[in-house]
Amino acid sequence: MGWGDLGGGVLGQPAKETPNLDQMAAEGVTLTDFYTANPLCSPSRAALLTGRLPIRNGFYTTNDHARNSYTPQEIVGGIADFELLLPELLQKGGYHNKIVGKWHLGHQEQYLPLKHGFHEWFGAPNCHFGPYDDGKTPNIPVYRNAEMVGRYYEEFAIDKHKGVSNLTQMYIKEAVEFIEEHSNTTKPFFLYWAPDSTHGPVYASMPFIGKSQRGRYGDAVMELDHGVGAILRTLERLAIDKRTFVFFTSDNGAAVSDRAASGSNGPFLCGKQTTFEGGMREPAIAWWPGQIKNPGTRKRRLPGKLEVFTRVELMLSVKFLCHAEWRPVFFYRGNEMMAVRYGFYKAHYWTWSNGWDEIKVGIDFCPGQVLANMTQHEQQNHTARPLLFHLGRDPGEKFPVRFSSPEYDAAMSPIRRIVVEHKRNLVAGTPQLNVCDVAVQ
Amino acid sequence: MGWGDLGGGVLGQPAKETPNLDQMAAEGVTLTDFYTANPLCSPSRAALLTGRLPIRNGFYTTNDHARNSYTPQEIVGGIADFELLLPELLQKGGYHNKIVGKWHLGHQEQYLPLKHGFHEWFGAPNCHFGPYDDGKTPNIPVYRNAEMVGRYYEEFAIDKHKGVSNLTQMYIKEAVEFIEEHSNTTKPFFLYWAPDSTHGPVYASMPFIGKSQRGRYGDAVMELDHGVGAILRTLERLAIDKRTFVFFTSDNGAAVSDRAASGSNGPFLCGKQTTFEGGMREPAIAWWPGQIKNPGTRKRRLPGKLEVFTRVELMLSVKFLCHAEWRPVFFYRGNEMMAVRYGFYKAHYWTWSNGWDEIKVGIDFCPGQVLANMTQHEQQNHTARPLLFHLGRDPGEKFPVRFSSPEYDAAMSPIRRIVVEHKRNLVAGTPQLNVCDVAVQ
Repeated sequence: MGWGDLGGGVLGQPAKETPNLDQMAAEGVTLTDFYTANPLCSPSRAALLTGRLPIRNGFYTTNDHARNSYTPQEIVGGIADFELLLPELLQKGGYHNKIVGKWHLGHQEQYLPLKHGFHEWFGAPNCHFGPYDDGKTPNIPVYRNAEMVGRYYEEFAIDKHKGVSNLTQMYIKEAVEFIEEHSNTTKPFFLYWAPDSTHGPVYASMPFIGKSQRGRYGDAVMELDHGVGAILRTLERLAIDKRTFVFFTSDNGAAVSDRAASGSNGPFLCGKQTTFEGGMREPAIAWWPGQIKNPGTRKRRLPGKLEVFTRVELMLSVKFLCHAEWRPVFFYRGNEMMAVRYGFYKAHYWTWSNGWDEIKVGIDFCPGQVLANMTQHEQQNHTARPLLFHLGRDPGEKFPVRFSSPEYDAAMSPIRRIVVEHKRNLVAGTPQLNVCDVAVQ
Repeated sequence: MGWGDLGGGVLGQPAKETPNLDQMAAEGVTLTDFYTANPLCSPSRAALLTGRLPIRNGFYTTNDHARNSYTPQEIVGGIADFELLLPELLQKGGYHNKIVGKWHLGHQEQYLPLKHGFHEWFGAPNCHFGPYDDGKTPNIPVYRNAEMVGRYYEEFAIDKHKGVSNLTQMYIKEAVEFIEEHSNTTKPFFLYWAPDSTHGPVYASMPFIGKSQRGRYGDAVMELDHGVGAILRTLERLAIDKRTFVFFTSDNGAAVSDRAASGSNGPFLCGKQTTFEGGMREPAIAWWPGQIKNPGTRKRRLPGKLEVFTRVELMLSVKFLCHAEWRPVFFYRGNEMMAVRYGFYKAHYWTWSNGWDEIKVGIDFCPGQVLANMTQHEQQNHTARPLLFHLGRDPGEKFPVRFSSPEYDAAMSPIRRIVVEHKRNLVAGTPQLNVCDVAVQ
């Protein structure tokens, strides 16, 4: 889901599919400059839960320079035991934790949610790709807690042809019931609501089919928005909204390569898989009635997912929304640091959209957006003289700051120091996404 | 000013420079699919005031196929006497009318505002280009009513180098004072507030310099937004807000070719001068406390400026906001019908960004946006088989509907009929922008 998929009321989607998220924004705080730690699903979610860059927590591959990777069924690796996940910290603080939806941190038993801080789980370790044959490749399993209770396309129906499935409704029901069960106890709860909807193949439940003006993708956005509304209204109905902190974001920018189901990244360049703004900048709304001052305001300075983790760790204080400072944001693709943002400046050390092999079969990560030295189909190394953009003046990354300008030197000087320090201090994790083996399915 | 220049609160500008327009949208109705009649200043304003396409009201040229034209100082033509302008109609209805700011409908005496329905004027017939030498080219005159009271860069200072001018403040003051003067009379009033700010060379007054995160352009947007706020607050202070209809829009999409002062057209293709969505789709907000039901909502179906005129003519009824139906929208560049929108479909009969002559000197109407057969630098005629886009699924005009699909035939069938009928019924006006003569300055 992309930055531009929200609104009319918030961030500028003309199809206005998100009345509940718009209302959440009006009652909370919208963070306009919020980043994921990676423009692909698995690494992004691993970063959200560990508070560490994928290059540190191991959610990357060294097989193929600057290629993102995720956790398909045949992947051998997963989240390491020594990584400290947000639910583990919260568990120590007395929280009861549930994940609803997609896990994506490894699908072998030792990597599953209940081994990593969650008390409950309803969902799947992977995306709903498929259907597969039952021989070489089984369909993705769906779990209730530690137990497999069926498979996508089998017990959990998805009609790919019609784009119909009840999955999001099931995930909404799970969320609402979990909140109801835990609203009366003194024990605090943590719900990680991670539906996999809007990911292709795109689906929605029947009441949402054809409801939007954007086709299946818009229908899916409307249903997700409906889910957010159901969760917030449940908190209000149970009168626990004033003691519940809710944060909405996405794992990566909208995929824009599929003509039948392209999301929107608003004014930003490209989308999912890329380290341009379209791939990394996320919609982000914080909500906590009574605790958030000046509801309806917009804040720029919250650098990204790692920050959320860090701050949640600090006893879930929302003070960060007022006091956050600029910190550098590192943009990785796989094992390569592609870019750095510091303040309003973003410096691209490497640039690439996607390779000719994909372009030839019609997969383009930047359709309609072509910028010299930026979106080309071979990887370019700009380390000696990074391409620099001012994201205030130029959020679309269209007009690089001139190399010969005083502005370039002034902006690059702290960035160069930050990058040297980052690389010196970096302890890269063991790459978990290097090895596939069909036997682990 | 572009569709994407508003918000965070409304339409998705991450720099959140428009709190007053955001509030206006929250209290009124935002029209997400509102179009100008031309992507350039003079023809757009002529269409707004006459309710007729520039090809009909004469604000085009036949000199150079599909070139937009405007009214520089040496232009001979202007708005014809037989054209019925909105202020003329309102005058007949007993209104007292004032224009504050840029006129742009011809600069010879017979074309000026007081000859065409306005009782008062403070502003200039043209943009604030310059400064010029006093010999061959004089600076643009500024008028109070029928009298010239000075010139830009002389009596009305603009510091191009620093991007500083008090002009917008003067235009705000004029608007507020006009409203104050006419709030107590039984005579209704019409104020056409048409500041020329955000047009290059971009300026703002000192208190707004450096205030935005987008440089000079953002500073100018903030000052315009401040002006809108001043006007709405004046209406409220004088307790006439419940009997005053306010409509905000822009004359064309944001210019995106100037790296130092690029506006934002959100998710749309290209900008000013083009008939892509970025050039023609405008921010549009209607405001009338107590009269607009469901404030804060978004409506898609108001096709554009001509519609506003038609409806204002019908006794300023705001019912149109609820009952408007799809009507075809015609997209012209100069003397050529480039595209048609009907319902969610937009068919491009001609495509072009801008010519190699401009590209060679660094002027690009679509920087960073390159789509085959759409944004190329030679004019392409697609009349035999127009390029078709579904603006619901694909607001960025990136993925043409396949020629061989049933959808293409189904959508093109009514569009072809509409175009035949349009061209058959079209009575083209005498082209007013064909002849230049320095003697008329």
